[in-house]
Amino acid sequence: MTFNDIPGGVTAPQGFLAGSAYCGVKATNKDSADMALIVSQHKTVAAATFTTNKVKAAPVRVSRTHVASPDVRAIIANCGNANACTGVPGIENAKRMCQATATALGLKERQVLVCSTGRIGVQLPIEKMEATILTMESCLSREGSNAAARAIMTSDTFAKEVAVELTVGGKSVRVGGIAKGAGMIDPNMATMLAFITTDAVIDKTTLQKAVSVAVEQSFNRITIDGDMSTNDTVLALANGAAGNKPLKYGTKDFKAFQTALDHVMRELAWLIVQDGEGVSKFVEVRVDGAASLADARRAAEAIANSTLVKCAWFGEDPNWGRIMDALGYCGAKMREEQVDIFYDGVNAVKHGMQSKTPFEKLREVVKQKRFTICVDLHQGSGEYVVYTTDFTMEYVKLNMGDGIGG
Amino acid sequence: MTFNDIPGGVTAPQGFLAGSAYCGVKATNKDSADMALIVSQHKTVAAATFTTNKVKAAPVRVSRTHVASPDVRAIIANCGNANACTGVPGIENAKRMCQATATALGLKERQVLVCSTGRIGVQLPIEKMEATILTMESCLSREGSNAAARAIMTSDTFAKEVAVELTVGGKSVRVGGIAKGAGMIDPNMATMLAFITTDAVIDKTTLQKAVSVAVEQSFNRITIDGDMSTNDTVLALANGAAGNKPLKYGTKDFKAFQTALDHVMRELAWLIVQDGEGVSKFVEVRVDGAASLADARRAAEAIANSTLVKCAWFGEDPNWGRIMDALGYCGAKMREEQVDIFYDGVNAVKHGMQSKTPFEKLREVVKQKRFTICVDLHQGSGEYVVYTTDFTMEYVKLNMGDGIGG
Repeated sequence: MTFNDIPGGVTAPQGFLAGSAYCGVKATNKDSADMALIVSQHKTVAAATFTTNKVKAAPVRVSRTHVASPDVRAIIANCGNANACTGVPGIENAKRMCQATATALGLKERQVLVCSTGRIGVQLPIEKMEATILTMESCLSREGSNAAARAIMTSDTFAKEVAVELTVGGKSVRVGGIAKGAGMIDPNMATMLAFITTDAVIDKTTLQKAVSVAVEQSFNRITIDGDMSTNDTVLALANGAAGNKPLKYGTKDFKAFQTALDHVMRELAWLIVQDGEGVSKFVEVRVDGAASLADARRAAEAIANSTLVKCAWFGEDPNWGRIMDALGYCGAKMREEQVDIFYDGVNAVKHGMQSKTPFEKLREVVKQKRFTICVDLHQGSGEYVVYTTDFTMEYVKLNMGDGIGG
Repeated sequence: MTFNDIPGGVTAPQGFLAGSAYCGVKATNKDSADMALIVSQHKTVAAATFTTNKVKAAPVRVSRTHVASPDVRAIIANCGNANACTGVPGIENAKRMCQATATALGLKERQVLVCSTGRIGVQLPIEKMEATILTMESCLSREGSNAAARAIMTSDTFAKEVAVELTVGGKSVRVGGIAKGAGMIDPNMATMLAFITTDAVIDKTTLQKAVSVAVEQSFNRITIDGDMSTNDTVLALANGAAGNKPLKYGTKDFKAFQTALDHVMRELAWLIVQDGEGVSKFVEVRVDGAASLADARRAAEAIANSTLVKCAWFGEDPNWGRIMDALGYCGAKMREEQVDIFYDGVNAVKHGMQSKTPFEKLREVVKQKRFTICVDLHQGSGEYVVYTTDFTMEYVKLNMGDGIGG
C-alpha cells in the first residue's frame, strides 16, 4: 500500500475548512444541521462528474458551469430539498445559494459549487437559506468534516468520511472525502453526493482524468435499487498546499495518487452501499469470461438489480436459478450449458446445471453478512464487478413515501 | 362488442377436453392437482410464443419443435418443477412427458406440447409422472377447464379462465383460455403459461399471426418485477369444430376473431397482474407523445419497473418526482420542461414542474385499488401502455425463497 488511512475526511488535507448550520430546509429539529460548507483557503483546481439522468436538478446545472472556473473556493450543500423539477426559479435559487456563499466569503458567484438533495419538485425556502449562508463563515474549522458529512445526510444512518495520506517526492499529500447516499443508488451515479478534497499540486485536466477513473471504479459500481437520481454529483477540489512536484499524468507519482483517490472513493461507495435503505447483506457480483466488457457489465447489473435475486439473498436462499434467469435475459452473449457460478468460491452451478455441492454449503455462504457471487460465462475475457445489497421488507417500508418528491 | 363473455375456459370451444391429476411433483397435499392435460378431439393447427430468455427450460425447447407438427392434439403441463437448467436429462424428461401422453391418448410424441413451471435446477420425478400421465385420459371432460387451470397454479391465489363467443358467417365460434402467472412477470413473457383453444376454422399461418399480435397487446404488456422467466409459453390450438368459413387474414371476420382473441389474452394478462405476488394496486402506465414507439416503451417500462415508484404507490404517495427521475434515466428522448403527467386525468406535472393541483387530489387517485398514470413527453407520436402493480413488503416476504430454484 502506498498510502495510509487517516482521520479527518475533507478537512484532512491542508488548507481546507468545513462546517455546517441549521436552516430548517429539512428537519424542524435544530440539533440536526441541514447545510454544509467546504472552503479552500488556497487557490484550487476543480473537477466533477454529474448524474447522467436527463432530468437534472438545478444545482447540477449551475455547478456544471461553475466547475469550469479557474479558482473554485467553496462547496455549499443542503439536504431536505433536491431543487429538482423546479424550472427557472430553481436555477435562480441555486445561483442565489452560490451568491450568498460568495458574499459571506468574499468570493465571486462562479467560485462556488452548489449541491442539493432531498425532495423533488418543491422550491427552496431561499430567503431563509440565504440568511443562514451569510452566517456560515463562523462555522468553518479544520475539524469541520464530520459536521459537514452529517449535514448532507438524508435517509443515511451514519456520516461517511474517508481520508488517506501518501508521500509524493518526499512531500506528504492528503486526499479526503465525505459522501451521502442510501436509496436510489445505481451505477451512473444516483442520489449520491461526494465531495473530495486534496492538497496535491495537480493541474485541472489531470485531476479531471483521475476523478473520472476513480468514479468509474467506485460510485458507478454500486447499485441498490437500479434507480438513478437527478442530483448525483461528485466534486473534487485540489489546492496544492502540499507543495509536491506537480503530478503529471502517467508518472509513478500520479499512479500513486490515483490509487489513493480510487481507495477514498471506493471506501465511500462501499459505505453508501452498506448504509443502503433497509439493507442486511453486502454482495459483490463478479462476472468473468464475458464476450466483452459491456456484456460483463450487463450480466453483473442484471443480477445485482434483479428484485427476485435480492429477495432470495434477504431470505438467505442461494437460489442460483434466479441468477441463471437474469443471465438469460440480460442481453449478454451466453450459452446456458457453459455457465459456472460460484458463491464465495464454492461451485454452485457447473455447465449450467446444479453442481455436486451440498445445498447447505451454499446456504452457509448466503447466511453471511457479506459474500461474493462469481459468474464465469466462458465466452471471452470481459470482466466486471458491481457491489450491491439484498432487498428487504424494510426497504419497501422506508420507501413507501410520505408526500411529493424523492 | 362483437363477442360475448361465456364460462368454460379452454373447454368452452367445441371438441376440447381438459382435466388434472395429482402426481406429487409439487405439493404433498393430494387434494391439490399438479398436472394438467388439454386435448382436442379433432385435428388442429397450433401456434405458440415462447420466452425470449436465453436460458430456456427443456419443455420450451421440446414444445418449440413439436408446435410445428401438422396435428397437435394435446398439451401436458406440470407445476412444482420448471425442468429448467437440467441439461440433456431435462430434455429427455420433457420428451418422456410427451411420449407418455401420446401413449395414453393413442397419439405420436410430436402431437403433444409440454410445459413445466416451478423450481429451477432440479430433475423431474419422471417415473412417477409417467405413471400419472398414463392414467390421465380418465380425468378428461368437457367441464375440465377449471381443474386444469388450478393444476398449473404455483404462487397464484386463484385460477385464471376466460372464454368468449362470437359469430363468424352465421356460425358460433368460441375462444377460451387458462393461464398462470404471479412473480417474475415482465414484458417479453415471464414465468407465465397460457393455453388458448378455439374451435374456429383457421390455417396455421393465420393463427400464428393472430396469436403473435394478441400476445404483444397482452402478456408482453404486463410487468410485476421486471424479471423474465425461463419457461414462459403461450400455446394456442384451433380445431375447426365450429365449421365456419376459413378465416382469411385481413378480412372483417378475421378482425372480429382477432378482437376476441385479444380480449381473451388481455383479460388473462390482467388477471395475472392482479394476482401478482403481494400486490395491492393495479396500475396502467401510458406514455404518449414519445419520439418513437420504442421510446414510449422504454419510458413506460422504466416507470413500471422502478422499485421506488412502486414502493410509493404501495404507500399511497403520488410521488411524481420518482416518475420524472425514471423518465430521465430510461433513455427516451425527453426534455424535462416539456413533460406533463396525469393521475387518472388529473394533472400532477405541467412543463416538468408541480401543477396547481392540490396534493390531496393526487393522493385520492393513488389511494384507489386501480388507477392510470399518463405521461405526455411532447416529442412525437409514440405511444405505449403497460399494466403493472405496486411493490409491497408482502412481495419481499413471498420471494425470500426456501431452497434452490425459482
